Amino acid sequence: MSIEKMISEHPQVGSDYNEALGRAVKHAMYCAAICNSCADACSAEEMDMRQCIRTCSDCSDVCEATYRVATRRTGDNRQLIRTMLATCVHACEICEAECARHDNAHCRRCAQMCQECAEDCRRALESLNDEVHADGQVSHFEHGAA
Amino acid sequence: MSIEKMISEHPQVGSDYNEALGRAVKHAMYCAAICNSCADACSAEEMDMRQCIRTCSDCSDVCEATYRVATRRTGDNRQLIRTMLATCVHACEICEAECARHDNAHCRRCAQMCQECAEDCRRALESLNDEVHADGQVSHFEHGAA
Amino acid sequence: MSIEKMISEHPQVGSDYNEALGRAVKHAMYCAAICNSCADACSAEEMDMRQCIRTCSDCSDVCEATYRVATRRTGDNRQLIRTMLATCVHACEICEAECARHDNAHCRRCAQMCQECAEDCRRALESLNDEVHADGQVSHFEHGAA
Amino acid sequence: MSIEKMISEHPQVGSDYNEALGRAVKHAMYCAAICNSCADACSAEEMDMRQCIRTCSDCSDVCEATYRVATRRTGDNRQLIRTMLATCVHACEICEAECARHDNAHCRRCAQMCQECAEDCRRALESLNDEVHADGQVSHFEHGAA
Repeated sequence: MSIEKMISEHPQVGSDYNEALGRAVKHAMYCAAICNSCADACSAEEMDMRQCIRTCSDCSDVCEATYRVATRRTGDNRQLIRTMLATCVHACEICEAECARHDNAHCRRCAQMCQECAEDCRRALESLNDEVHADGQVSHFEHGAA
Repeated sequence: MSIEKMISEHPQVGSDYNEALGRAVKHAMYCAAICNSCADACSAEEMDMRQCIRTCSDCSDVCEATYRVATRRTGDNRQLIRTMLATCVHACEICEAECARHDNAHCRRCAQMCQECAEDCRRALESLNDEVHADGQVSHFEHGAA
Repeated sequence: MSIEKMISEHPQVGSDYNEALGRAVKHAMYCAAICNSCADACSAEEMDMRQCIRTCSDCSDVCEATYRVATRRTGDNRQLIRTMLATCVHACEICEAECARHDNAHCRRCAQMCQECAEDCRRALESLNDEVHADGQVSHFEHGAA
Repeated sequence: MSIEKMISEHPQVGSDYNEALGRAVKHAMYCAAICNSCADACSAEEMDMRQCIRTCSDCSDVCEATYRVATRRTGDNRQLIRTMLATCVHACEICEAECARHDNAHCRRCAQMCQECAEDCRRALESLNDEVHADGQVSHFEHGAA
């Protein structure tokens, strides 16, 4: 099953399917799941993992909101997608830094996932910025929210 | 990235990793994302898709809760996982039946995803039932909730 | 702000607004938030709270899906609302039993919230059952899912 | 039931309970629920409400992640809370602007909720900025993420 193909079948999406954004959606979805699992695994460890439970729980919530918002293509809300992608990069960087401090296999896997998700969100952000500039205009939502 | 491998690295999980449950987690995660995308795509279609928006939105929420709960392995909450898996089967069957009534590519893909997710949740449920019976006992939580 | 008034303003809802269901929505929303907070507070305690983190995290996820699904009134999906309400009762009973074992103020508050949420979900479930029987028929979704 | 009191009972929170942040948590929780309801109500209206369904769905997801992250007090992740509060202001401003364009009672209520939530998030953000400056230092997470 492919979330990228799903998005490409949206009635407003055609030849202009944004690959970088599709990839960010997929990895934010995975990162939400991996961080949720890491928070749970950390709570079962013997050592004090409370800061890691915190950053993983937070990162899971942010990634989930990010992938859900970044999936949608009806109407327009690109400005908010850009804000969420930047927020997701922030959450992933914090979580990666914390997980990288621990030797548990689940923390190492989570740190790697966060790094990849942050990188994909950065690329999607650049790609969206290019799209908006290429349009030579911003939508009324982007004006309204400025 | 693999959510199944992530779960197998949980400190309470070892040789007893439940493959059927791991597969249900993965597909419920995907189904949450696909249904969220289908609800959005349906709202952009010209025909009246309101019932489909409803069943997709509901199924997305149920699948998300299911995969998050079914991922956790700290302590014990198997009884709730079983209840959520059965609920997820129900949500997926309803959503599949509605999406199957429409010719849109995204609805066909969503119907297929729901069918697979329901099937995987059914197998995970059987597998958990076997586990609980093999234990020859129920936990105090299961007693408490009965 | 009132989520109950919001639901009563839905175009398909009029004089038939279901008070018991509106109350369950409100309390499941609160229970999702309280359980999320309790899971976090438990992870900061000195004693071993891992089982309580688990049941609170699970209950938060289930309550959130429940209130979101039970809020919707477009088209029909009452059968799934009933299944989710029953699942929510189960999650709240398990979480209440675990939180009641601890003396922390946040656990006592969470146990009370879970008890109230379970009670409201039970009443909403009865109310929906009455509605469905009063209709003298079940929708095609309810047939399809049976 | 009070989510603010719940947070004040967290073991790391005492006389330093941040009222502005507690209020933002409460209203972001409500705004997530109101926007979820408005998206559903909009899909049942006769007129074309697709842009409003989009902005309400997005705002609901962002508010939910915001209130869950902003609730937590274990360890430290204030920098991410600040980023999420700013993102939530953005989502609420966009959703308020769209809902304000429609005469439906649910859209008017949703616009008002979004306005209040944005205002509370702005105040919580100022309050957190003051806190961080008063500390005269930033945590290693804030350094790491800079």
